[in-house]
Amino acid sequence: MILFNCDYSEGAHADILRRMAETNMEQTAGYGEDPYCDQARKLIAGLCGRTDLDIHFLIGGTQTNFTVIAAALRPHQCVLCADTGHINVHESGAVEACGHKVSAIPSPDGKLTARQIEEAWHAHWDDETREHMPQPRMVYISQPTELGTIYSRKELQEISGVCRRRGLYLYMDGARLGYGLCDEDNDLDLPAIASLCDAFYIGGTKVGALFGEALVLRHEALKEDFRYIAKQKGGRLAKGRLLGIQFLELFRDGLYFRLGAHADRLAVMLRDFCRSRGLALPFSSGTNQQFVTMPDSVLEELGRKYGFAYLRREDETHSTVRFCTSWATREEDVRELMADIARLC
Amino acid sequence: MILFNCDYSEGAHADILRRMAETNMEQTAGYGEDPYCDQARKLIAGLCGRTDLDIHFLIGGTQTNFTVIAAALRPHQCVLCADTGHINVHESGAVEACGHKVSAIPSPDGKLTARQIEEAWHAHWDDETREHMPQPRMVYISQPTELGTIYSRKELQEISGVCRRRGLYLYMDGARLGYGLCDEDNDLDLPAIASLCDAFYIGGTKVGALFGEALVLRHEALKEDFRYIAKQKGGRLAKGRLLGIQFLELFRDGLYFRLGAHADRLAVMLRDFCRSRGLALPFSSGTNQQFVTMPDSVLEELGRKYGFAYLRREDETHSTVRFCTSWATREEDVRELMADIARLC
Amino acid sequence: MILFNCDYSEGAHADILRRMAETNMEQTAGYGEDPYCDQARKLIAGLCGRTDLDIHFLIGGTQTNFTVIAAALRPHQCVLCADTGHINVHESGAVEACGHKVSAIPSPDGKLTARQIEEAWHAHWDDETREHMPQPRMVYISQPTELGTIYSRKELQEISGVCRRRGLYLYMDGARLGYGLCDEDNDLDLPAIASLCDAFYIGGTKVGALFGEALVLRHEALKEDFRYIAKQKGGRLAKGRLLGIQFLELFRDGLYFRLGAHADRLAVMLRDFCRSRGLALPFSSGTNQQFVTMPDSVLEELGRKYGFAYLRREDETHSTVRFCTSWATREEDVRELMADIARLC
Amino acid sequence: MILFNCDYSEGAHADILRRMAETNMEQTAGYGEDPYCDQARKLIAGLCGRTDLDIHFLIGGTQTNFTVIAAALRPHQCVLCADTGHINVHESGAVEACGHKVSAIPSPDGKLTARQIEEAWHAHWDDETREHMPQPRMVYISQPTELGTIYSRKELQEISGVCRRRGLYLYMDGARLGYGLCDEDNDLDLPAIASLCDAFYIGGTKVGALFGEALVLRHEALKEDFRYIAKQKGGRLAKGRLLGIQFLELFRDGLYFRLGAHADRLAVMLRDFCRSRGLALPFSSGTNQQFVTMPDSVLEELGRKYGFAYLRREDETHSTVRFCTSWATREEDVRELMADIARLC
Repeated sequence: MILFNCDYSEGAHADILRRMAETNMEQTAGYGEDPYCDQARKLIAGLCGRTDLDIHFLIGGTQTNFTVIAAALRPHQCVLCADTGHINVHESGAVEACGHKVSAIPSPDGKLTARQIEEAWHAHWDDETREHMPQPRMVYISQPTELGTIYSRKELQEISGVCRRRGLYLYMDGARLGYGLCDEDNDLDLPAIASLCDAFYIGGTKVGALFGEALVLRHEALKEDFRYIAKQKGGRLAKGRLLGIQFLELFRDGLYFRLGAHADRLAVMLRDFCRSRGLALPFSSGTNQQFVTMPDSVLEELGRKYGFAYLRREDETHSTVRFCTSWATREEDVRELMADIARLC
Repeated sequence: MILFNCDYSEGAHADILRRMAETNMEQTAGYGEDPYCDQARKLIAGLCGRTDLDIHFLIGGTQTNFTVIAAALRPHQCVLCADTGHINVHESGAVEACGHKVSAIPSPDGKLTARQIEEAWHAHWDDETREHMPQPRMVYISQPTELGTIYSRKELQEISGVCRRRGLYLYMDGARLGYGLCDEDNDLDLPAIASLCDAFYIGGTKVGALFGEALVLRHEALKEDFRYIAKQKGGRLAKGRLLGIQFLELFRDGLYFRLGAHADRLAVMLRDFCRSRGLALPFSSGTNQQFVTMPDSVLEELGRKYGFAYLRREDETHSTVRFCTSWATREEDVRELMADIARLC
Repeated sequence: MILFNCDYSEGAHADILRRMAETNMEQTAGYGEDPYCDQARKLIAGLCGRTDLDIHFLIGGTQTNFTVIAAALRPHQCVLCADTGHINVHESGAVEACGHKVSAIPSPDGKLTARQIEEAWHAHWDDETREHMPQPRMVYISQPTELGTIYSRKELQEISGVCRRRGLYLYMDGARLGYGLCDEDNDLDLPAIASLCDAFYIGGTKVGALFGEALVLRHEALKEDFRYIAKQKGGRLAKGRLLGIQFLELFRDGLYFRLGAHADRLAVMLRDFCRSRGLALPFSSGTNQQFVTMPDSVLEELGRKYGFAYLRREDETHSTVRFCTSWATREEDVRELMADIARLC
Repeated sequence: MILFNCDYSEGAHADILRRMAETNMEQTAGYGEDPYCDQARKLIAGLCGRTDLDIHFLIGGTQTNFTVIAAALRPHQCVLCADTGHINVHESGAVEACGHKVSAIPSPDGKLTARQIEEAWHAHWDDETREHMPQPRMVYISQPTELGTIYSRKELQEISGVCRRRGLYLYMDGARLGYGLCDEDNDLDLPAIASLCDAFYIGGTKVGALFGEALVLRHEALKEDFRYIAKQKGGRLAKGRLLGIQFLELFRDGLYFRLGAHADRLAVMLRDFCRSRGLALPFSSGTNQQFVTMPDSVLEELGRKYGFAYLRREDETHSTVRFCTSWATREEDVRELMADIARLC
């Protein structure tokens, strides 16, 4: 089987494993208070072009999301997100388990608009019975989204603007941020994201690390005592340096971006091929996730050889599935997939 | 101002106050372990025609809802409900504060169908990634619904059937149950409800009591240790007999049903009048809540004299509002309202 | 049976019932936004001698405690209290159910000292691994305590001082505040309490009301959005005016204090009598709770006729029990109890 | 600096890193559903001599503890533990954040006795007001304890007996289980532990792994839907095979026990040396944690060169500190430490 079902099928980039082995028997302090984490924090802050950032390394994405949300919200407050948002769909109710409603807003392409956020804010504050409703206090967006789409700089500026006017924290889930930043249409960069969001994370697990996410906190109110809460929620690694080492390797000379570009190039190759064969791609993605609508008979055939993820049924004979590339995907595997699609369609 | 905005504007039926005064200086055990609560429990069980019921008196509806849900669900489980459901809209995130997702299903009339529940069950269990999603374990319905509509016996039987086949607890929020049972189209009664639901509550606050809800638990798994959880959630009244006394008065000779019938009669009078004047009533209700679409100019005028609740804007010049009658509504006030509507429309 | 086991065996003072009946058919807004609640808030603020107080009426004591604590603390923060504190012992884990540790400090007499609080603060902040521990952020005290003892003005000043120096909210549970204020040794009053505490509540349930507690918030940080959280936690009564009416009656001409003085006078009469008969009273109480150590054989005999609460076994033949008087206790019942004790001891 | 302050200062045993590198570019399913995890589960079940075990690999100890507890308890239930227990002291209130009280029982040596558990059970169930108290439903013990002591087979049998008679789940935190099993006085083994406990975990993080704990569930009630809850709580690793690979290496030919024996041998060498120099060791430990009481002046001197952990002050001039060895400790470092102690004492 060749797996395109997700972007975490392999281990880590070889440089990361090598560096872990080199430093293996050093003694360091635990829980992220070691020199490697310190260096990685400085490196990332530098890439963001700011000195007012608190950076924490956590183990996984679900954890990072619910820890930030738990740290930010008071008991009656909720987080707004697209109905496709990972926290709404695929985290086993983790945010609710921390006590907060996820208020989902319908989105055809995985993105929220500034206008939707403004309307949701009004729907709450203009209602006389608002004290009987959860109060919006944070906006959660994913970059790229769960459907492979990305926010443009202008879109993010507009969203950031409404969030600041309305007193909403803006939090970006960057589980696949590397793939978003390397999208050919992308016009955002780390300094812009760090400036427009109150918090975001740079995903390692899906972009070349064994595991780990670098959470960046800019808003002062989110910084206080964050480490207590991360410990409480199980997000801090005893041997914390393993996270620092990985992010050092990913960012010290641009590896993260090379890995992102690799996956996106192969995904776009697959996308353009599918388009050229007349297959429908319901979302416009230049990132590592490509959603393709195919006849069920073709999918059944492909399923014997390839792993991919089922999204939804489109009609009685067609379904849409997701193919993921990643930092580890081999071009020959994508070419083989394309050849098989060509043969079957 | 004459208030039709809700059904809890007045105090309690005079018989209840009188009985409270008569028993005031008696000494009884607290927290619902007194003879009045015992008698009220037996009386209600008898009206339900069963001997296998645990009955608890709680203070209010929000409390009753989140206490039952917290008692029933394990951490990863969620409750299905119509998107209009009180727990989804008007309880300040109380269910989420207990750790559970409220999975809302779109409903045009406030009701869920057996088919929607079946589909929601399949959507979870047929998904390979279901362990990353909250697991449906309970269905919450309101009778009557927040839009004034009611479930028929056949509808409730179908819902109960799918719930039992699929291992879902069926819980009915009866905040206005008295008004539902007295709807002219109603074909349900307490024995049917007690038999088809796993738990439900008979609302007192909105149907003649000062406050209080009688929660009826039939499913064995919901009974164990319920009083611990009700205490923890603040739902048990120290002077618990006040709840027993109220439900005794409401049910010992049918007062509850007379109060329900009174409110429904006045609401239907208003409904039929509005229809006769060509006003749109978007939901089909024979209960104490009537939703009427009116020109905004008329609403502005009426608002100087009457209280009513705003539901939604229909177009640039019309909105839908709710008029509530209750056990305490005076016929003359409804007639005055009708006269004013006649004058303005 | 004559009940001395608790202070909530009867209903409410006759004036309260009468006033409820008089206002019964008035229409008012719900959830505490009615004129009676407004008047009661002004009255209590005036008695506290301040204009910067937010006052909320909640239904019961457990609810009030966990709602304040949930509103005040971030997820990693805990509340310090005496090990005898009601939140630590008798609220079914309600505070923990809101996510917070109750850090109990041993206390022989139900009281915390300023020194204990200072030490607990240091134990946290001086520890290098403090981020792995819950962070103290609030101090919970009861006045009078669960053992009938009271804090003096000097003690409360010292506690308030350390709380302000150390950034700890000071919250006083006044479930029996009326009995504390009427203790012959008491030198505190409402203005002092309102000034020294960040929040406290004036208990109604145990001091003449049917139910209800008046929560007074002075610290600005505790005020924001409190009504959302009280709604979420089930603490707001739909017919909120019932709470306003009760507190108006209790405070408009000093009824609350007359009821407190009545209970304390009878309790002290019993206390002095027991002392005169050579019985040990392990705690020094001038309030309505008197703990007396008696031979088990006497207790068995008394138990046939009187209700009282068991505290603990002292040795093989003696136990300590609690006798409560209340606003409703009849002097003749206390005299009968004393006569029986005299006969048996 | 030479670090003896904890047992997670280094990375992982070389065999583990090597095996990670060898398998790095393989594609496997995520979240623990890969062949390596399957093999590791079978291997551990075999070592426990049972076929009725569910085994889950989680990332860290705090996570494992709160996930098991959240999965096991209903909202009103609490977990009993020694006051020194990790969940009571060093997990930032993680169990309370899941809604449950940690009911701590004083313990001078870190261990609970069967009698203490029996008494705690009676204290709850014999109390008439028990519904106002958290209900004990689980017992948490650590093997070895946080003070380095271990339970004997007889002690564990007695504890298991009372837990089964009283309906309490018995859960063992085995963060350092390898060091406990290799204690020269130990008479327990994996089959005995798996049979006497309802759940326990085999710690990897502190015994040679990069990170990871193997949770073993025997009681049927704890197994259902555990993976949902582990996902919700952030405990499941996307690249789950990393955990399987590590436990395969640790257990396929006894590496885990060799690593445990190594650390214990060095710790006992240090212990016996300290005793021989007349230093007090307040707890009886044959495991990798040794607590030694020393003059503060000596500790200050040692602190310039060695890392160790402060436990408590004993008197004005002495304190007790902890020295940890681990799988990675070098004998020469222990000998250097002993030489320095010899010189200073």
